[in-house]
Amino acid sequence: MYKLYGSPSTAGTAIHWMLLELDVPFEAVLLDFDKGEHKTPDYLALNPDGVVPTLIVDGAPVTQMAGIVTLLAERHPEAGLAPPVGSSERAPYLSWSFWLANSFQPHFRAWFYPHEPAGGEAVDAVKEAARVRIEQGLARLDAHLADRDVIVGDRFSTVDLLVTILCRWTRNMPKPATAWPNLKRYLDRIRQRPALREVHAREGLTDWIDG
Amino acid sequence: MYKLYGSPSTAGTAIHWMLLELDVPFEAVLLDFDKGEHKTPDYLALNPDGVVPTLIVDGAPVTQMAGIVTLLAERHPEAGLAPPVGSSERAPYLSWSFWLANSFQPHFRAWFYPHEPAGGEAVDAVKEAARVRIEQGLARLDAHLADRDVIVGDRFSTVDLLVTILCRWTRNMPKPATAWPNLKRYLDRIRQRPALREVHAREGLTDWIDG
Repeated sequence: MYKLYGSPSTAGTAIHWMLLELDVPFEAVLLDFDKGEHKTPDYLALNPDGVVPTLIVDGAPVTQMAGIVTLLAERHPEAGLAPPVGSSERAPYLSWSFWLANSFQPHFRAWFYPHEPAGGEAVDAVKEAARVRIEQGLARLDAHLADRDVIVGDRFSTVDLLVTILCRWTRNMPKPATAWPNLKRYLDRIRQRPALREVHAREGLTDWIDG
Repeated sequence: MYKLYGSPSTAGTAIHWMLLELDVPFEAVLLDFDKGEHKTPDYLALNPDGVVPTLIVDGAPVTQMAGIVTLLAERHPEAGLAPPVGSSERAPYLSWSFWLANSFQPHFRAWFYPHEPAGGEAVDAVKEAARVRIEQGLARLDAHLADRDVIVGDRFSTVDLLVTILCRWTRNMPKPATAWPNLKRYLDRIRQRPALREVHAREGLTDWIDG
């Protein structure tokens, strides 16, 4: 039995979705950021960064969106959400997983928390730099998808789950992911997945799922 | 036969070190950043971000420092540099690996390339924010090491390799990693590893290894 600490429409949504894809028993605790529930001493003891997600696995907290989905895919190999160790797809799987974590997701942190990189005076410049980097990343993904339906190999994996969540975060940006044609086609297909539609329903998210 | 594209005293050093730990055949190509060898069309075809490292594995380029060491540990399980899939240490192993990639290493990018997050006018503010975040990360690592010799489980893993490389990058910062007592003890032990000493020799790095 897993226990997820998340919050609607955050990185926690990725884990919530993953648990539904796996169809495993779990409890979801959705924290209210407006009430600071992610900054309480009890929660900081589980996640010192005060961010979501945290997943309780065998009684111990596990953090990091990409780390948790990678772990869950390993623990439930029958779901086929990651290429098996030893297969030729492990190289692109790990490379893309860490590229998303290291070189793409941090720009969203800057976009949504623009006071963090350089204080309040630089907010506009930070957002502009983040927008450029996010669009460069989307262009990279779009090019990769020109002749592919998924990012790695030939079946949906945790990399696609992460890409989809990050693309969702662009929906109110000047040029959202769906403005790129290959990404649009890719996301339109993934947005039909029952587990993604279910997590939208459970977290009360009504936009984006249908366009 | 692996082929590494790196550069002395960069993230490429982590892969160079890893290959020496594994004692496997490889060719190392050390790019000269001053000559822009990481921005040539040929190199950008391998690594669109124009950064190091890139490792050629079975003829295809693999990028991302943490992704490559994770892949290499999987491909050479006899070296014991990662807990095996299915073991209880996989949760902390993956969580720390992605924490380093997502929540710690990006602050070094900001420290060393401070014009990137918000343009030239915010350089001082970016460096100050990055310094604070890097020191918070070092404090986290130091606290974790209070009663431990390695980050995950009870033996040296790729997480320790990554932590050591990132700690080395603090050597000229106001408060380097070695100013934290547990980190100092930990790093002093790791700096005795023959493969780390060998990569320092091969890349012509003379500082830090002995102090």
